[in-house]
Amino acid sequence: MKKGIAFYNVGDVFDHFLLVKAATKGVASNGKPFLTLILKDTTGEIEAKLWEATPEDEELFQSEMLVRVMGDVNQFRGRPQLKIQSIRPAQATDGVQISDFIEKAPVDKETLLEQITEIIFEMVNPNLQRMVRYFIKKYQDDLLVYPAAVKNHHEYVSGLAYHIVSMLRIAKELKSLYPEVNKDLLYAGIILHDLGKLKELSGISAPSYTLEGKLIGHIPIMVEEIGQAAKDLQIDGEEVLILQHMILSHHGKAEWGSPKPPLVREAELLHLIDLIDAKMNMLNRALEKVNPGEFTERLFAMENRQFYKPTFEEK
Amino acid sequence: MKKGIAFYNVGDVFDHFLLVKAATKGVASNGKPFLTLILKDTTGEIEAKLWEATPEDEELFQSEMLVRVMGDVNQFRGRPQLKIQSIRPAQATDGVQISDFIEKAPVDKETLLEQITEIIFEMVNPNLQRMVRYFIKKYQDDLLVYPAAVKNHHEYVSGLAYHIVSMLRIAKELKSLYPEVNKDLLYAGIILHDLGKLKELSGISAPSYTLEGKLIGHIPIMVEEIGQAAKDLQIDGEEVLILQHMILSHHGKAEWGSPKPPLVREAELLHLIDLIDAKMNMLNRALEKVNPGEFTERLFAMENRQFYKPTFEEK
Amino acid sequence: MKKGIAFYNVGDVFDHFLLVKAATKGVASNGKPFLTLILKDTTGEIEAKLWEATPEDEELFQSEMLVRVMGDVNQFRGRPQLKIQSIRPAQATDGVQISDFIEKAPVDKETLLEQITEIIFEMVNPNLQRMVRYFIKKYQDDLLVYPAAVKNHHEYVSGLAYHIVSMLRIAKELKSLYPEVNKDLLYAGIILHDLGKLKELSGISAPSYTLEGKLIGHIPIMVEEIGQAAKDLQIDGEEVLILQHMILSHHGKAEWGSPKPPLVREAELLHLIDLIDAKMNMLNRALEKVNPGEFTERLFAMENRQFYKPTFEEK
Amino acid sequence: MKKGIAFYNVGDVFDHFLLVKAATKGVASNGKPFLTLILKDTTGEIEAKLWEATPEDEELFQSEMLVRVMGDVNQFRGRPQLKIQSIRPAQATDGVQISDFIEKAPVDKETLLEQITEIIFEMVNPNLQRMVRYFIKKYQDDLLVYPAAVKNHHEYVSGLAYHIVSMLRIAKELKSLYPEVNKDLLYAGIILHDLGKLKELSGISAPSYTLEGKLIGHIPIMVEEIGQAAKDLQIDGEEVLILQHMILSHHGKAEWGSPKPPLVREAELLHLIDLIDAKMNMLNRALEKVNPGEFTERLFAMENRQFYKPTFEEK
Amino acid sequence: MKKGIAFYNVGDVFDHFLLVKAATKGVASNGKPFLTLILKDTTGEIEAKLWEATPEDEELFQSEMLVRVMGDVNQFRGRPQLKIQSIRPAQATDGVQISDFIEKAPVDKETLLEQITEIIFEMVNPNLQRMVRYFIKKYQDDLLVYPAAVKNHHEYVSGLAYHIVSMLRIAKELKSLYPEVNKDLLYAGIILHDLGKLKELSGISAPSYTLEGKLIGHIPIMVEEIGQAAKDLQIDGEEVLILQHMILSHHGKAEWGSPKPPLVREAELLHLIDLIDAKMNMLNRALEKVNPGEFTERLFAMENRQFYKPTFEEK
Amino acid sequence: MKKGIAFYNVGDVFDHFLLVKAATKGVASNGKPFLTLILKDTTGEIEAKLWEATPEDEELFQSEMLVRVMGDVNQFRGRPQLKIQSIRPAQATDGVQISDFIEKAPVDKETLLEQITEIIFEMVNPNLQRMVRYFIKKYQDDLLVYPAAVKNHHEYVSGLAYHIVSMLRIAKELKSLYPEVNKDLLYAGIILHDLGKLKELSGISAPSYTLEGKLIGHIPIMVEEIGQAAKDLQIDGEEVLILQHMILSHHGKAEWGSPKPPLVREAELLHLIDLIDAKMNMLNRALEKVNPGEFTERLFAMENRQFYKPTFEEK
Repeated sequence: MKKGIAFYNVGDVFDHFLLVKAATKGVASNGKPFLTLILKDTTGEIEAKLWEATPEDEELFQSEMLVRVMGDVNQFRGRPQLKIQSIRPAQATDGVQISDFIEKAPVDKETLLEQITEIIFEMVNPNLQRMVRYFIKKYQDDLLVYPAAVKNHHEYVSGLAYHIVSMLRIAKELKSLYPEVNKDLLYAGIILHDLGKLKELSGISAPSYTLEGKLIGHIPIMVEEIGQAAKDLQIDGEEVLILQHMILSHHGKAEWGSPKPPLVREAELLHLIDLIDAKMNMLNRALEKVNPGEFTERLFAMENRQFYKPTFEEK
Repeated sequence: MKKGIAFYNVGDVFDHFLLVKAATKGVASNGKPFLTLILKDTTGEIEAKLWEATPEDEELFQSEMLVRVMGDVNQFRGRPQLKIQSIRPAQATDGVQISDFIEKAPVDKETLLEQITEIIFEMVNPNLQRMVRYFIKKYQDDLLVYPAAVKNHHEYVSGLAYHIVSMLRIAKELKSLYPEVNKDLLYAGIILHDLGKLKELSGISAPSYTLEGKLIGHIPIMVEEIGQAAKDLQIDGEEVLILQHMILSHHGKAEWGSPKPPLVREAELLHLIDLIDAKMNMLNRALEKVNPGEFTERLFAMENRQFYKPTFEEK
Repeated sequence: MKKGIAFYNVGDVFDHFLLVKAATKGVASNGKPFLTLILKDTTGEIEAKLWEATPEDEELFQSEMLVRVMGDVNQFRGRPQLKIQSIRPAQATDGVQISDFIEKAPVDKETLLEQITEIIFEMVNPNLQRMVRYFIKKYQDDLLVYPAAVKNHHEYVSGLAYHIVSMLRIAKELKSLYPEVNKDLLYAGIILHDLGKLKELSGISAPSYTLEGKLIGHIPIMVEEIGQAAKDLQIDGEEVLILQHMILSHHGKAEWGSPKPPLVREAELLHLIDLIDAKMNMLNRALEKVNPGEFTERLFAMENRQFYKPTFEEK
Repeated sequence: MKKGIAFYNVGDVFDHFLLVKAATKGVASNGKPFLTLILKDTTGEIEAKLWEATPEDEELFQSEMLVRVMGDVNQFRGRPQLKIQSIRPAQATDGVQISDFIEKAPVDKETLLEQITEIIFEMVNPNLQRMVRYFIKKYQDDLLVYPAAVKNHHEYVSGLAYHIVSMLRIAKELKSLYPEVNKDLLYAGIILHDLGKLKELSGISAPSYTLEGKLIGHIPIMVEEIGQAAKDLQIDGEEVLILQHMILSHHGKAEWGSPKPPLVREAELLHLIDLIDAKMNMLNRALEKVNPGEFTERLFAMENRQFYKPTFEEK
Repeated sequence: MKKGIAFYNVGDVFDHFLLVKAATKGVASNGKPFLTLILKDTTGEIEAKLWEATPEDEELFQSEMLVRVMGDVNQFRGRPQLKIQSIRPAQATDGVQISDFIEKAPVDKETLLEQITEIIFEMVNPNLQRMVRYFIKKYQDDLLVYPAAVKNHHEYVSGLAYHIVSMLRIAKELKSLYPEVNKDLLYAGIILHDLGKLKELSGISAPSYTLEGKLIGHIPIMVEEIGQAAKDLQIDGEEVLILQHMILSHHGKAEWGSPKPPLVREAELLHLIDLIDAKMNMLNRALEKVNPGEFTERLFAMENRQFYKPTFEEK
Repeated sequence: MKKGIAFYNVGDVFDHFLLVKAATKGVASNGKPFLTLILKDTTGEIEAKLWEATPEDEELFQSEMLVRVMGDVNQFRGRPQLKIQSIRPAQATDGVQISDFIEKAPVDKETLLEQITEIIFEMVNPNLQRMVRYFIKKYQDDLLVYPAAVKNHHEYVSGLAYHIVSMLRIAKELKSLYPEVNKDLLYAGIILHDLGKLKELSGISAPSYTLEGKLIGHIPIMVEEIGQAAKDLQIDGEEVLILQHMILSHHGKAEWGSPKPPLVREAELLHLIDLIDAKMNMLNRALEKVNPGEFTERLFAMENRQFYKPTFEEK
């Protein structure tokens, strides 16, 4: 058996389980109804057509369910498409579960929590430490499973926590290189910077933007949350204001969604560390899919560039 | 007597009261200390030099006090400058008061409050009405005296309230032209849109930006305040989210400080009405100072344009 | 019967009259000729396919004629498409007429003319009044039926006159708020600002750009017309120059087609009023089509934004 | 005697005639009035100070008059400044005249007219030829003496005609390389493209912008003039429209003042030829002033670049 | 017989030889394999479908071979498509050769070499002349057959040499108009400016970018080559540096690939001459395909403009 | 004694040694010559005026010499200025040396070399290692003393080597976080990326741009050097091309001087690490000069931002 849907080529026959990501109805040019399904496993996704779908089919196949599907991999407008021959819902006896079909961070959530907790122990500024503890406690469940984004980078289960932990590691090293850096402030900023995504995104698998996400966005959402947390915790040191500023400015520029640019050293560092980790995540995953001597596909969030993997990487 | 400092020309002798806006020390090229004062009345301001200032002078003349000053109006690098011959603090017996030297809105604050209150009475959506009442009550004193900005438009006492009232009048008329508009939403947005300036600006006369103003800015400040007000008032309808969005988006574009552009009809209208009233305020005040057939000075906040007053305006 | 083509869903059968907006021939992958028709009524338009079209069909079905058409509403690439079962030209006895199938301004042309005329009566500057009368007389017929644009806003019969009248109403109110405004100048600018479109656009239903429109554009066309009118009427006051400037600058910026930005107060106001009325026209029509709690389609001329209709709009 | 004011260095004594370009009054820090004069000859200009100026001095020394001046060349803020020791108006007996102090094109106006006329003879399209003759006749006097601009390029007497003649020569060569080019159209476009400057600029020596120049600009002015000329000459071929388009588009882009970009081959060529001749004029004059191995001053109209003159240019 | 593939319309039957530019396999929605061929002659190219292709077909038909093809010209998504009825490789006895199917410069390569050589004879600066000779000798074969680009302008056999020769002719004329220009420098810059393309592009017919082309680009490639040539020839005058600068800056701006803008007169001229010749090549070829009174297709490399051919061009 | 010139305030008397950075002559408004000196020590620099300078003074005081100077610190246009009372050249017996007056990296050059050498030992790719050794050997002397820039960041003795070593440390940590990174490639890129500055800058103390620096710039200079080194070392693996690409792209964008953006993972990382180290160097040095609760001066190379030092930094 092949490793996953991403490894099938035009002409192959596919016969295995997949997760339904989306299902929409259509009417073919011959007037007959059909279903367009987006099917996925951890290696990728494929558009599939169930021609001459019955009303029962339309009822049956819904987003977020597992199916057993058999069909031919064709090509349509330059992209692979699965022409379904047979399809049925997965059953208990099939021994497959949804979590096997969703991409996950390479580190489990217990370890991620442990690493975040360890960093919090290192903090000495009581205001910053209390603030961070408050949020970890409040959002622990979601924080450990949410993706960091809808697409582009860390867009998988536990992506947000994995992104935080990677950033904390970079921060730790930069602190040792630049001892002037306020470690507590930088750690607090990293842990909190994207928590607004827990309200901006609709969920864990196949997330979209909530109404609040569309009209306000994760940055102002989190600025407000910090203000309210400070009230609840009765903290009124300048740390609150600086933390709000760090969240507000972490996209770096007004055009990128930060109404104020970083105006505090640790805010600038937070922005740079976020940039590095997001870019490396995108780059590494794109390069993993190509052989030495080849270019990756275009990476939209990296100015549409295609990256080259040198031939001497083999050695 | 001339009408005010703005009407004095090079060569004139000035002998009257002025308000000290700022005072800074310097040392002249001959090694002697001097004072640079910015002096103002309601018509404008002038830089003044008190050469060979004594340590007593340096102590005595401070920002926000009234002085009687006599001197010659010279020109330095193309701008008028007052060479002080004599200067003394104003005394009780002089019969002058600070409020006579600060520019004020053309309508008194009682009338402004009345007009805002009247509009609130017209509102029928209880969530929006309660929210607006809450803020008017909380900030009434400052709201009625604050300027709307540090410079450019409505930068005078009661400028903020005057700006709100003008915008409400425009809103009322546009509502009658476009009946689809949600009047309550638009009114609430107008009344609240700039209240964050009460925290962004340091005060009423000669205001500067507070630390919170520099690091967060009046838009996120007010978004947070609305969230907290909703908690206090236990309002949780969609009105809260929409109001926050209106505040957030009222500058129209990311580059202008709004991380989300207007995505609700009344948010778009709020942005446009704000634009019109701010521009008309700048334009009318600049054109007032020139004769028909002349151009105004460059207006920085209007893309540095100089505006022309047609000759037939005389008729 | 459903209200119009825009209200039909995939799977519905359509059987009614429509106006042919465009007709083009094609050859199907089976080698057989077919016709692609764009059919419309006042609610919208739909692409329709007449498969296996005969040479007679190709001759018969032309742009700007009414047809009776029966067929199924399918979906093709995410958009509805009508698969024609039968089609025939409308006949005199069908009792339908083209004007019923074209969108029109919500006010009839007599009323529009009346409202414009009323405003002209209010003008007191003889040069401006004569100029405006001259153009109203010269272009009255076209002015009352032309659209204001090919697409985006007021793109329907009498759209131009309706846009003018709406703008005049806004102008009247702003004059009362800002008494410094020169009413006559602003009224004249509004009435004349887009008259160049009578030469820029090819006609009333389904207009395209004329050669003059493509190579010169409505702004320089109208600047020239005002110059010639002034010659004909022997007016040579500064009003002519200022009016030409208002037309020239009414798009606000060089990038938007105005080689000079507004440099006269009423020119700036003209630009702002034009902006408000165009945007409100687009917004109101887009929001009318969606339910509370939904977003509109993307509005190209409003930076591709999708607007939200709050749920509390129902109340 | 040195060749001209541009060749004097700090420390030199100047004692010769100069033309007053501008005169403004000031008051020195010692309270005494002084005059700031801008004095020029064909090599350049210098700011001059007449300290302790009498009221008679202020009356006497006016723009556009010749003076005999003696003084020291100092330096003020990095720029040379003339400290006047003595100054008097030039007298008839001094044998100097204004035209000796203004820069002129290197070719006399009779020759320029001859070269333009010769080109007109070569034209065969009667509509284009008549149009060009009409304008040459109408504006002959001004056309032969006006500068092509207020500053940057060809900003000297007969600069406009000289610019036209240079462009015609380039056009002639490009026509021979690219025979598809419509020679008559290109010639007509070149001759007429900047004639609007005769209304945009106030005069020949020390020109500024007229009100019409500021509010309308030379491009729309000339588009209108061509329309009126066509009416007068009863020409209504497509040539009129194309010529208007060429004028309208000759700055190449909206941001540079052309509401339509070139959409006809000869319009594109006109834009490119204009660019080359303007740039070469600026470059050659700037390089003339420096030695091999040196950089020119910053050229504002060439993106503020400084150009290098290679050392091997000496050979 | 029609003149070439570009002149066939939908509905025509094509039966002639064509060159295979590219061949890719696909699987139709009925599950059967097919071939998509891009076929071309000197007038243009067409996409062709060979439905139900056999494995032998897939082997047989490859890029860069000549085929005899018969089929119907259909339309698919608004573009012509050839539905192949029969296809076979061309044979020796068919009397056709590849060079007849590739577009070539309008001048043969011997003449181009002669014209370049002639210019080199005119050069008097020994360093520049030796440098140019070195490269002409080194790259003569490729230089005379390479295209100047992959698309947009001079994208045909000998396009590079033809572009050089056209530019040299313009240079010669501009030298006579502006005698200050250093002829040798300008000639050398023109001849060498695009030689880096011999390494940037993969070949002559259907060229693509090499890895070196993608990662370095023709400009830095050629800067390096000049440095190495100077070493080989033991030239160390300033000419080397200036030539490198001319190559480096010839795209005019950083955004267009020149890290330094032109800072030497001849570098600026090189950029302008390159611009003119590239634009005229694009424009003339696009206008050649349309009739008077029509617009060309959109020209991507000319800001997507469509150009108009005036009706009086017929005369 | 105060610590250095940067710590003197207006009104203080300065009496100590300083290094002359620049000396220029002027003539005062009283007609007398004066000298403007820029004097510096490791803490900063100050403009100084020697009024009524004799011709001997003008001869004597030159750039790059040490002087003993006494005078008063005044203020001129908001900046401190030293009014010289007495000045004399430093003598051997004064026991001061130039190196004490120039800012240096905080690590000595032996240590820097050691750290670079250590990294080279870790490299295993022979092509990359040989290339790096070649350049370290070729440029060792200059590399260890040159600044990394003329201003903004690491603009002090050994700044370049210090910048390289800091970047190597960051690289080492990122390699451990992202094991996919090719360590040898990244190290080689970091060590070589700015070596072109050794030709771009004129020297160590008070450096300016060389002609080669102005016309070519350090990026293409180094691309060429790598090509030549590869020839000398007879290396022709893909490593050469990739290294050249890394140098070429390390500024990240065309507008910032890189004609190709990073298209290899390690090239992107090189760009990001360069950014972090340059920014941290600027930020730390600016923040060092201010107290908690204050803002820094505007940092030109960081978009003119002023950074805030939080009050809780004291704790």
